[in-house]
Amino acid sequence: MSKLSIVKVGGNVIENEAVLLPFLQGFANLSGPKILVHGGGKKASLWAERLGIPVQMNAGRRITDTDTLELITGIYAGQVNKSIVATLQGLDCNAIGLSGADGNAIQAIKRPIAAIDFGWVGDVASVNTPFFTQLLDQGLSPVCCALTHDGKGQLLNTNADTIASQLAVALSKQFDVNLYYCFEQLGVLQSLEDLDSLIETIDTKKYKELLDQKIIHQGMLPKMKNAFDALNQGVSKVAIGKPEMISSSIKHTSITL
Amino acid sequence: MSKLSIVKVGGNVIENEAVLLPFLQGFANLSGPKILVHGGGKKASLWAERLGIPVQMNAGRRITDTDTLELITGIYAGQVNKSIVATLQGLDCNAIGLSGADGNAIQAIKRPIAAIDFGWVGDVASVNTPFFTQLLDQGLSPVCCALTHDGKGQLLNTNADTIASQLAVALSKQFDVNLYYCFEQLGVLQSLEDLDSLIETIDTKKYKELLDQKIIHQGMLPKMKNAFDALNQGVSKVAIGKPEMISSSIKHTSITL
Repeated sequence: MSKLSIVKVGGNVIENEAVLLPFLQGFANLSGPKILVHGGGKKASLWAERLGIPVQMNAGRRITDTDTLELITGIYAGQVNKSIVATLQGLDCNAIGLSGADGNAIQAIKRPIAAIDFGWVGDVASVNTPFFTQLLDQGLSPVCCALTHDGKGQLLNTNADTIASQLAVALSKQFDVNLYYCFEQLGVLQSLEDLDSLIETIDTKKYKELLDQKIIHQGMLPKMKNAFDALNQGVSKVAIGKPEMISSSIKHTSITL
Repeated sequence: MSKLSIVKVGGNVIENEAVLLPFLQGFANLSGPKILVHGGGKKASLWAERLGIPVQMNAGRRITDTDTLELITGIYAGQVNKSIVATLQGLDCNAIGLSGADGNAIQAIKRPIAAIDFGWVGDVASVNTPFFTQLLDQGLSPVCCALTHDGKGQLLNTNADTIASQLAVALSKQFDVNLYYCFEQLGVLQSLEDLDSLIETIDTKKYKELLDQKIIHQGMLPKMKNAFDALNQGVSKVAIGKPEMISSSIKHTSITL
């Protein structure tokens, strides 16, 4: 099976030109088929403020009313996605930007209203594997934003970490998938106060220990869950760390079963 | 040669849900390969006002500074494009939204600064015909917004009418192309004050007469020029009229050589 790199990059990297440009250069230089998944939440919050649209978050997830959905569709699928795609094209990487609606790439189901009404938020229901495989076979590098659709005309806001892991799982039948979560830290830290306390390897046993000791902090919890879900469903390798890790030997956290 | 429909739809249609939905239904029902090209200028102007970004126009063309480019990238490639794509998916049309940067679909050259500096405005330099052909062969319907790129990382604002005619010309080597310009009127009118003064056919001779008599008004001039350019370069048929013309026998203006 040929290798496929799926790289997820978060808002802190995207907002920072000095970090984003070398990262995109590193992504462009990755050999073999590759997919980029990006967030954009920080910029969305800035624009919401400019426009007087209230930002409502619950446990790190954005509550998405109709105005917010319109706004983030502009930011995620428009500004952030097309700026990344144009930059990659300039770096000789034949990128193609996608929301989940494009080519019916990723369908989701609107999250049912329970204790919290998240609004236009969707949980991934299916990935159009043949569509992604065709694009990759044509030498294209999909750049996916954090939007899906319900197949009935409605766009939905979907967590970018989850999109990355669901893509990784779906494509692991045809590819040997390496999944990279890039953010502003070296990886999973033993202590958030000590930037040298990197945990270089986390396996299932270590994960349980960290959970028991409550060492994995809020923001990292869904990332770790996504990572183990992906490994349990056929993804070969998951790494969490700084964007440099995709193109250098910088230390990071490797997740294994 | 198989038939290809290229349909350009303007801002007045896009802003009006009551017109847009039946139009998209009509587009979804068109048989054979098809491409949609859309504007979005009216919405961009509304958002510019909300954000306090000055709108500068010259002869109907938007002067595009950096703030304006960021804004229209959000509106054209994000909000308008993805909302159309999601709606078409809901109508069983396998749409894929594209800017010119995606898959290196359409490259342009930044317009040189002459009497007027249009800013980040580009004139089409090349259409990636194999890319469009591949998408069409896969049963996908490209939905193109009015953005191109320079191949070096820069997005550019490009007139949607021109994108439609350039696509039509580029694809006329492989397809029997029918190009439709849809807007709010029945077609080219003899008198703007008389909605019944539709000119049903305009050939080269009639076009010259109308130009001499200064009957073709400002907004229509570039559309007509694009139409004749397209016909002179191999496009089979050009029609100008209401969006209903793509799916009904409503009167419109047919342009012929």
